[in-house]
Amino acid sequence: MDLMPPRPILYRPLLERALREDLGRAGDLTTDAIIPTDRVVRAVIDARPPGTIAGLRIATEAFTVLDPDVTIEYLLEDGTGVEAGTDLAVVHGSARSVLAAERTVLNLLGHMCGVATATAAIAARIAGTGAVVADTRKTTPGMRALEKYAVRCGGGANHRFGLDDAVLIKDNHLAVAGSVTQAVQRVRSRVGHMIKIEVEVDDLDQLAEALDAGVEAVLLDNMSPSQLREAVELVDGRATTNASGGITPDNAREMAETGVDLLSIGWITHSAPNFDVGLDF
Amino acid sequence: MDLMPPRPILYRPLLERALREDLGRAGDLTTDAIIPTDRVVRAVIDARPPGTIAGLRIATEAFTVLDPDVTIEYLLEDGTGVEAGTDLAVVHGSARSVLAAERTVLNLLGHMCGVATATAAIAARIAGTGAVVADTRKTTPGMRALEKYAVRCGGGANHRFGLDDAVLIKDNHLAVAGSVTQAVQRVRSRVGHMIKIEVEVDDLDQLAEALDAGVEAVLLDNMSPSQLREAVELVDGRATTNASGGITPDNAREMAETGVDLLSIGWITHSAPNFDVGLDF
Amino acid sequence: MDLMPPRPILYRPLLERALREDLGRAGDLTTDAIIPTDRVVRAVIDARPPGTIAGLRIATEAFTVLDPDVTIEYLLEDGTGVEAGTDLAVVHGSARSVLAAERTVLNLLGHMCGVATATAAIAARIAGTGAVVADTRKTTPGMRALEKYAVRCGGGANHRFGLDDAVLIKDNHLAVAGSVTQAVQRVRSRVGHMIKIEVEVDDLDQLAEALDAGVEAVLLDNMSPSQLREAVELVDGRATTNASGGITPDNAREMAETGVDLLSIGWITHSAPNFDVGLDF
Amino acid sequence: MDLMPPRPILYRPLLERALREDLGRAGDLTTDAIIPTDRVVRAVIDARPPGTIAGLRIATEAFTVLDPDVTIEYLLEDGTGVEAGTDLAVVHGSARSVLAAERTVLNLLGHMCGVATATAAIAARIAGTGAVVADTRKTTPGMRALEKYAVRCGGGANHRFGLDDAVLIKDNHLAVAGSVTQAVQRVRSRVGHMIKIEVEVDDLDQLAEALDAGVEAVLLDNMSPSQLREAVELVDGRATTNASGGITPDNAREMAETGVDLLSIGWITHSAPNFDVGLDF
Amino acid sequence: MDLMPPRPILYRPLLERALREDLGRAGDLTTDAIIPTDRVVRAVIDARPPGTIAGLRIATEAFTVLDPDVTIEYLLEDGTGVEAGTDLAVVHGSARSVLAAERTVLNLLGHMCGVATATAAIAARIAGTGAVVADTRKTTPGMRALEKYAVRCGGGANHRFGLDDAVLIKDNHLAVAGSVTQAVQRVRSRVGHMIKIEVEVDDLDQLAEALDAGVEAVLLDNMSPSQLREAVELVDGRATTNASGGITPDNAREMAETGVDLLSIGWITHSAPNFDVGLDF
Amino acid sequence: MDLMPPRPILYRPLLERALREDLGRAGDLTTDAIIPTDRVVRAVIDARPPGTIAGLRIATEAFTVLDPDVTIEYLLEDGTGVEAGTDLAVVHGSARSVLAAERTVLNLLGHMCGVATATAAIAARIAGTGAVVADTRKTTPGMRALEKYAVRCGGGANHRFGLDDAVLIKDNHLAVAGSVTQAVQRVRSRVGHMIKIEVEVDDLDQLAEALDAGVEAVLLDNMSPSQLREAVELVDGRATTNASGGITPDNAREMAETGVDLLSIGWITHSAPNFDVGLDF
Repeated sequence: MDLMPPRPILYRPLLERALREDLGRAGDLTTDAIIPTDRVVRAVIDARPPGTIAGLRIATEAFTVLDPDVTIEYLLEDGTGVEAGTDLAVVHGSARSVLAAERTVLNLLGHMCGVATATAAIAARIAGTGAVVADTRKTTPGMRALEKYAVRCGGGANHRFGLDDAVLIKDNHLAVAGSVTQAVQRVRSRVGHMIKIEVEVDDLDQLAEALDAGVEAVLLDNMSPSQLREAVELVDGRATTNASGGITPDNAREMAETGVDLLSIGWITHSAPNFDVGLDF
Repeated sequence: MDLMPPRPILYRPLLERALREDLGRAGDLTTDAIIPTDRVVRAVIDARPPGTIAGLRIATEAFTVLDPDVTIEYLLEDGTGVEAGTDLAVVHGSARSVLAAERTVLNLLGHMCGVATATAAIAARIAGTGAVVADTRKTTPGMRALEKYAVRCGGGANHRFGLDDAVLIKDNHLAVAGSVTQAVQRVRSRVGHMIKIEVEVDDLDQLAEALDAGVEAVLLDNMSPSQLREAVELVDGRATTNASGGITPDNAREMAETGVDLLSIGWITHSAPNFDVGLDF
Repeated sequence: MDLMPPRPILYRPLLERALREDLGRAGDLTTDAIIPTDRVVRAVIDARPPGTIAGLRIATEAFTVLDPDVTIEYLLEDGTGVEAGTDLAVVHGSARSVLAAERTVLNLLGHMCGVATATAAIAARIAGTGAVVADTRKTTPGMRALEKYAVRCGGGANHRFGLDDAVLIKDNHLAVAGSVTQAVQRVRSRVGHMIKIEVEVDDLDQLAEALDAGVEAVLLDNMSPSQLREAVELVDGRATTNASGGITPDNAREMAETGVDLLSIGWITHSAPNFDVGLDF
Repeated sequence: MDLMPPRPILYRPLLERALREDLGRAGDLTTDAIIPTDRVVRAVIDARPPGTIAGLRIATEAFTVLDPDVTIEYLLEDGTGVEAGTDLAVVHGSARSVLAAERTVLNLLGHMCGVATATAAIAARIAGTGAVVADTRKTTPGMRALEKYAVRCGGGANHRFGLDDAVLIKDNHLAVAGSVTQAVQRVRSRVGHMIKIEVEVDDLDQLAEALDAGVEAVLLDNMSPSQLREAVELVDGRATTNASGGITPDNAREMAETGVDLLSIGWITHSAPNFDVGLDF
Repeated sequence: MDLMPPRPILYRPLLERALREDLGRAGDLTTDAIIPTDRVVRAVIDARPPGTIAGLRIATEAFTVLDPDVTIEYLLEDGTGVEAGTDLAVVHGSARSVLAAERTVLNLLGHMCGVATATAAIAARIAGTGAVVADTRKTTPGMRALEKYAVRCGGGANHRFGLDDAVLIKDNHLAVAGSVTQAVQRVRSRVGHMIKIEVEVDDLDQLAEALDAGVEAVLLDNMSPSQLREAVELVDGRATTNASGGITPDNAREMAETGVDLLSIGWITHSAPNFDVGLDF
Repeated sequence: MDLMPPRPILYRPLLERALREDLGRAGDLTTDAIIPTDRVVRAVIDARPPGTIAGLRIATEAFTVLDPDVTIEYLLEDGTGVEAGTDLAVVHGSARSVLAAERTVLNLLGHMCGVATATAAIAARIAGTGAVVADTRKTTPGMRALEKYAVRCGGGANHRFGLDDAVLIKDNHLAVAGSVTQAVQRVRSRVGHMIKIEVEVDDLDQLAEALDAGVEAVLLDNMSPSQLREAVELVDGRATTNASGGITPDNAREMAETGVDLLSIGWITHSAPNFDVGLDF
């Protein structure tokens, strides 16, 4: 299935910033001093542990941003689950270029595979329940589109990309608006017709009010499995249900079995451990 | 102690990118639709679990980048270890501005405190051994200077900031150069006199050769505690010793007790879990 | 009513580009050669014809981007309908700065007021019908958020801000997908739950299929008033109805009286004549 | 005749901004969800009404900025007057890329052809009189070089590109300087010898003073045809004569027949209606 | 006399680039490690040798770009000729900030004063002849506007700022056009009426042809004083005369006494020695 | 020998800025008006006087940044010493592109060759002494990496690239720290282990203290040859010795013969006269 990877025009500035951050003013002193300019290598990128791949073409594009003569052969596509030790890609080109860009490539690839692997781990636990893992806006500054793509690679779904592509009414908004009903009315009268509205609710009363107000989705915040179950029943298909707060790998399946549509987990983007990828000559 | 925080001129572009990434083209639809323009708030940023604070002034500067009229009162400084529930700062200003920048601030602050807290946890384990935790170049693209500052906040030391401020000769370089001696000679003749040289060594023979070549530091790669102890003895103060590879919180103390100067751990920057910070009205 | 103007962080780069485009390398030669540095002026910005104001604070911020010591007193707010000759703002400051930024300010203000005035003119024609004027993505490169804000100032509604905040399935997409049903299914399975789906339909059969597929909005393309009326009846409140194509000031009321929710008109952004604003000492 | 189109290095940043503005963070959701990655198309860009073409190669370069594998065959050159329905170019490449860049291309092309068509319409009215249509600095922020190129495509002449490539002394400058003579003297003594000087004059006395001061051009502001005729006679070839203010398509020929060299019309850049171009598979 | 200094919006990006170039990723390690954060200093900027000052306010703005709390008291203005040891400005503020920006400030100030001093030296040699020193486009990449301002500070005049604000027809252009007359005709028919034309001529025949073609200025290339004298006589006030090529401080007066209007010297911008300025606590 | 030239990703933004600075908004008016679009040329770049080449590939890349179809044949490599009149490269391509980029290329190439030639001149004077010329941070804003590369091309060595890749303790730092010993201790405890420390000393007492503190290098400031000789004797190989202050081409050999390792000379970067390179069709 096509995972709709972001276009180079969107992430290439990040690759350039990352390369410049590592090269500094004087470049790769070690490599330039030791490796002859005409030395060519064949290097293999491989996954050290098992996991799910994301960002393979994106991260390795840093090689060609640094040196357009480097070529890369891809052995699999993003979204693939791999065994430990699986080769991912073969890089050919100037040894200087490969070494100078190596850390930039591996840092980005390890980060994106980390997000995908964390997502896939949750997805595996809730397989068959009908629920899907969803991300949040709790992402690393500057990397949102790449992290959300990695979530898709891991089998997760994307929540909002930012503050402007959908409305999510939270407790602080409700406190000012006075009620769910008033908050939804204010939003309806001011945002475009192509914008969906989700409301964060803490209990069934708020939920009922949100449903009456006709919102497209509800964020069921910090509810226990039994509360979630009641909430899902009350919603009865009238809105997307999204559990949020306190969801861990351990309780994810129990949460998912309540019938909610989505489990929102900030952890998959803000705390996913780096996935160990290596590059060997 | 002064932790030498980065200057705003170095990180402000990152704050602007992060804000623009979240605001998109249309801004905070929810907040702008619901919160009156003249509503003013007092909000408190607090640490949910115990940990070590880093980036408090840096991350909250996103509030003032968005709205120069927001003011912030700081209750403690970076590098402080805190109990769960400790208040960190008080934010005053337009409710719209505080809500619109909230996620950007918390994402960055949570990330930096996460790195500091992970570093401090290792530092605590090896306290009294004389060894210090050191970072690597395994950082998040675009955030190296901030993550390395967070490492300092957590009591760690900084290794190279990039490929150009010091030389680190690794296995791939040695393979091309032929020997440690030749690699060091090539580097010496080509880089400036203010650049230090470190060599990654796998065994005592390589180590002896590196010391003979007069390098300033040695990276002792994937050595067991007993190998490390032998290596430290062999070095006998002639170079900085830096253990690297396979160091975990669990074995850190045993590694540290071998007498090495530094324990390099990529995990503290590339995999530190986000630290939970909240903002409450 | 609050029109949710964009944040300075979003439009300030455009002001800087516009000023640099006019100042070039050598700056305002005429003014710098003739006007003494200490000459201070009071200048009034006024509307020459009647119209609707948009961008007053945004455009005049170019004065302060050039010279932070210029101060501006606003005599009315965006969204106000004005008579010919109405004063809008009073600018105080260095004569050099006011003259050097004058054209940049007036070009942007005239453009935004032009969009608002064009929108308001259509809005006036369809007043009382229940239909609202909506914009499109047919905007001037680099100015989308400002033009869409100007549409709101003129009483119009915003359609999508870009390709990523909502789905709009057009004829070319349908040709590939095979049918409305299949197109909607493909989209549903791949985009986040907070994304609305609109389908462009040419006839009632397509419309029926779109409604069955559960889309949130339908773009009724190039339909006559009688076709529109039938379409609205068929929809019967199950989706937002959006007439598009061939709508002119002259036929707008007839279109609006068919009961459609929105009239999408590219003309209000891509062809609105500049609104004449002046600056007098 | 060669119209001296701007170099890509000057307009490519605008194409990138325009693409990013439309693609946002998540890209073309609709197209990516529906169109297979390997679908290739042949699309034709055509002019819907008759008009004058400008920006064909410039605007369509957005296709290749997004996707270097798209190829474009040009069927005519900028500056060509076309009948309704004329094919302009054929685009080959990935259907995803063509659809994702379509609106960006058409927005820019429609805008530039609009300026050229408006210019050509005036030019046609004054053909044979010896007068030429000239543009002003009343351009869209960020698009001055492209709009002035479109004016050339439509048969018009360019006035200043900015505040720094020529001097234009206006009423506010004269008020400070005290007299035309003094203003011209101040400018002469301060700007380089390669800078021309034009003075805006309201009557024949000012005009005589400007000619005595030796200015290279005079802007004859808001003069009636008979005043213009007198002014041209007085100038007698000693300076370029430039009528400005109140010139419309309807009175342009009468103005031109007074013998002035140039008719300056802000309308051709700030208010030219968009020219309708389409892209069909 | 007012020297029309460039606006901050034009040079501030250069100050930011220069500061970032010196601070790198980790900032001023020495200063941050040694100087307490609360240490405040009063530092004096002075001229070591005698010379002409340029860029005093511009270069020292780097202090406030780094740290808005630094204040600067200016003791004289740009364009002033100073004795050795003259104090130029007093800087107050954080010792860390002053030291971190010191080199950036002095590098720029020394460069600009160097250009002004070189210009003033030539100007002094030709004083009373009626000729003026003029600059060229032989400037340092990225610093043209600042160097041309420094030329004005030294009493010189500005030639073109770039390829687009005036026409200069050189030998390579003439070779293609066939003759001066044809070259001038081609230019006249294609560039705007506010653009002056200068032709580079090698002998009196070319000069006569250029004058017949009505050019505004002539560049008299590599002529001896006696040739220059003949040329000036031939021109007889019909065009600006500009000697160029082989002009040195030693022969400048002899050249100037030929009656030419301008002496163009690339050396004042591309080879002016740095002027020694110091900063003392 | 390989001179480790900077990567294009590091200097290409400077090439783009330099081209845009010269082309302005309207481009090369003269060339575009006179030279037909299809005219192709072969142009030779040559060195007018004898000297040392630096930046040949870097500077000429401006041709291809402007026009990717221009090709360049290189006749020698950077670091080569050349006779007067030596051809350096042959440029083939559109005459318009070659002429439009000519000045940008020559300005950068002349500047870099100037730095290399100045460095090589000093290097020649001290040949055989064992001392090497070293640069400083007294560079042109925005050009540090290119100037330091040119120094290497001229046979010089690089000192720090910025404030963050090494520590240099100067008099102002010592004044605050109280003593060399305390300053070094403060630095040691705060900067990473890969950072070298150099101290500026004025006399032998300070020198002795610095050596006791174990610094890696000493800057011997403004010492006479006899003082330098004593200092070198005292150091006796324990640190790199770097003479600085008052070194001129005339006294360089005498300084070098004192046995110091390095002679630091700001003049080679901040005051090297431009090297005359030409481009002929």
